Amino acid sequence: MNCVVAQSGGPTVAINASLAGVILENQNTGRFSHIYGAVNGILGVLNHQMLDLTEKSAEIPDFTDRLIHTPAMYLGSCRYKLPTGDEGQAEMERIFGELKALDAGVFFYIGGNDSMDTTARLASYANEHQIPVQVIGIPKTIDNDLMETDHTPGFASAAKYVAATVREVSWDAYIYAVKSVTIVEIMGRDAGWLTASAALARTAESAAPDRIYLPEAPFDLPAFIEDTRDLLKKKNTVVIAISEGIRDKDGNYISAGDSLSDNFGHNHLSGAGKILEGLLQKELGIKVRSIEINVLQRSAAHLASKTDLLESASLGRKAVQEAADGKTGVMTCIRRLSDDPYRIVYDACPVSDVANRVRQVPREWINEAGNDVTEEMVRYLTPLIQGEADVRYKDGLPDYLPVPHLIHE
Amino acid sequence: MNCVVAQSGGPTVAINASLAGVILENQNTGRFSHIYGAVNGILGVLNHQMLDLTEKSAEIPDFTDRLIHTPAMYLGSCRYKLPTGDEGQAEMERIFGELKALDAGVFFYIGGNDSMDTTARLASYANEHQIPVQVIGIPKTIDNDLMETDHTPGFASAAKYVAATVREVSWDAYIYAVKSVTIVEIMGRDAGWLTASAALARTAESAAPDRIYLPEAPFDLPAFIEDTRDLLKKKNTVVIAISEGIRDKDGNYISAGDSLSDNFGHNHLSGAGKILEGLLQKELGIKVRSIEINVLQRSAAHLASKTDLLESASLGRKAVQEAADGKTGVMTCIRRLSDDPYRIVYDACPVSDVANRVRQVPREWINEAGNDVTEEMVRYLTPLIQGEADVRYKDGLPDYLPVPHLIHE
Repeated sequence: MNCVVAQSGGPTVAINASLAGVILENQNTGRFSHIYGAVNGILGVLNHQMLDLTEKSAEIPDFTDRLIHTPAMYLGSCRYKLPTGDEGQAEMERIFGELKALDAGVFFYIGGNDSMDTTARLASYANEHQIPVQVIGIPKTIDNDLMETDHTPGFASAAKYVAATVREVSWDAYIYAVKSVTIVEIMGRDAGWLTASAALARTAESAAPDRIYLPEAPFDLPAFIEDTRDLLKKKNTVVIAISEGIRDKDGNYISAGDSLSDNFGHNHLSGAGKILEGLLQKELGIKVRSIEINVLQRSAAHLASKTDLLESASLGRKAVQEAADGKTGVMTCIRRLSDDPYRIVYDACPVSDVANRVRQVPREWINEAGNDVTEEMVRYLTPLIQGEADVRYKDGLPDYLPVPHLIHE
Repeated sequence: MNCVVAQSGGPTVAINASLAGVILENQNTGRFSHIYGAVNGILGVLNHQMLDLTEKSAEIPDFTDRLIHTPAMYLGSCRYKLPTGDEGQAEMERIFGELKALDAGVFFYIGGNDSMDTTARLASYANEHQIPVQVIGIPKTIDNDLMETDHTPGFASAAKYVAATVREVSWDAYIYAVKSVTIVEIMGRDAGWLTASAALARTAESAAPDRIYLPEAPFDLPAFIEDTRDLLKKKNTVVIAISEGIRDKDGNYISAGDSLSDNFGHNHLSGAGKILEGLLQKELGIKVRSIEINVLQRSAAHLASKTDLLESASLGRKAVQEAADGKTGVMTCIRRLSDDPYRIVYDACPVSDVANRVRQVPREWINEAGNDVTEEMVRYLTPLIQGEADVRYKDGLPDYLPVPHLIHE
């Protein structure tokens, strides 16, 4: 028997570690003769574009170790929502036809909540039509907004990068003896987990970021301006972390919200930092700078969290174990037993409990004023960013595994 | 006898290494009883704000080693141009009065071409007025645009960060099987050295960045659009590196050029990437994204070049040696003997040859079409980014030396 694995949604630096976990666990158990990687997510199944990962493992020295330390998606991605109705029926038939042709008894899908929707639908279809294919989800997203799992692969590395970057940007901002505000805009459309991780940048001597604004607490613009003005009476250098998704009490985004939307109906946001930069400059008449960390926070594998990479690989392994146990329609997940010492167990949950839902930051992990996170949040985040990845360097730069789908270019 | 050292201009991750070099060399020679650090550059001398670095070295464990690995400026910075005329005369008297009160026989100034202007004027004033104070410059700037030195401290680390980031952004961009353009905007107002370093991101398998545009070659907008359109016929993913300072054949900046100017009359540029993003989106009708690396490229000490840190410390040491040789009005510098094997010597040059001048990329190191750099440029850049800094991590994050001037906040 063989299996097919695919990756979907936005990239992280740990999603390849989950792929490596699938390969490594199968090297132990030998259940699948071939692990096929579908290129560009479920589209690779529909379009018959496959890589034989069993062959790749044999051909490329240190393949799985290099895969673990390579950012983005080795197999490429897609943002494709399976159609419904007759068209959906036809695509389901093609997908399961292709899986049958490959003698694939299991389909593993690594992705976020949109991908878990696809996973749930595939599992349900197979079940209804008594097709002998198990469908198993493996989580990932830098947004950390999946239900049922304590945290998501890729989040911890992004959090480590955000915290390190906010610290470095603060050291940069401290150097002039003039009043200034630095705004750092961090990814997170509907959930503020990643922005919250900026709190980890603080040290005994440095309070930066002085304020943290998440989408989960309404953003009050006049209060923000007055608070910043007050801060500047006490200190020269103010550093503020904001989520791209901050919004007012009526739910209107502070960002321009250019109304472009992707296939899942999300708005593409950008610019909350730029907008606040302009407003503060006008209101306070001092130097204001905004920095958008942009895709660096999800692609900087050179600063990955070792904890994240280990856990992501383990969730891939766990998926193979779940398959061996005959499970389908589940997603592997992490349950936390304690913060300090940090203890977790790997588990699985029904994927339908995850699909299309968003886990936001609990309001009680944000302070009353809505401009900082609590100690509880810091205790939650701290263990996740521990440990540095063993990045290979060649000629002074991180040496990542070449992207195989470049062969199509 | 004592000495005073100060840091000025924009931060880099290596400017503290030069400060450490001054301290380390004096630990060998013992010439200065106290090394005083002026807080916020020459303003610290004018305002009598000094740190006793000899005491700090004794008090803080591993002080110089931690200093070498801490970004930005331990002593703070300023952008202050000494006035001319009567006011200038009065400030000169105050500066040399303060130095005399501190029994300082040498003033070391670590900075870029504006700071070297200050250095030249101080040296010349001391000389004319027979004041027994030597004035010695130590170079730094991520822009690599100082005359007389093969390259500048801080540049190599910024180049390493830019190249690593462009590689990581490219891996991120490769994942979708749709046409897209990613524009990465890199610092460099008048000189394209740092943008050129994006070329180092290329590998045997990855051509990204596909194009590189520097300020030294006129930017032809219609040709740029046509070239990008042609590239997209051959491949899905196009990655383009541009300098913030690209300009057309008449010298007009592509960026908005908001006409704000700092005390030295420079324009603050931003937005060339955003402007090209909008134009390409309109002309080509595909997904276009622009990423401004912003201050991260000058503050990311976690990815510093080991070569850069060693050389920066050596230029600080060399300055102490030049002082011992009785020199004044000089700047320490690097002369390259060969690219491969990489061999350099440390030297000194008249600071007046450096002040207020800009060393641009030679036109012959840019290809004829003006959209890439040559092999010669790559040979020049490659040795500079070699080696990874021994960054200390604590609780998962880089552990930088606390900023002492935060005590004023």
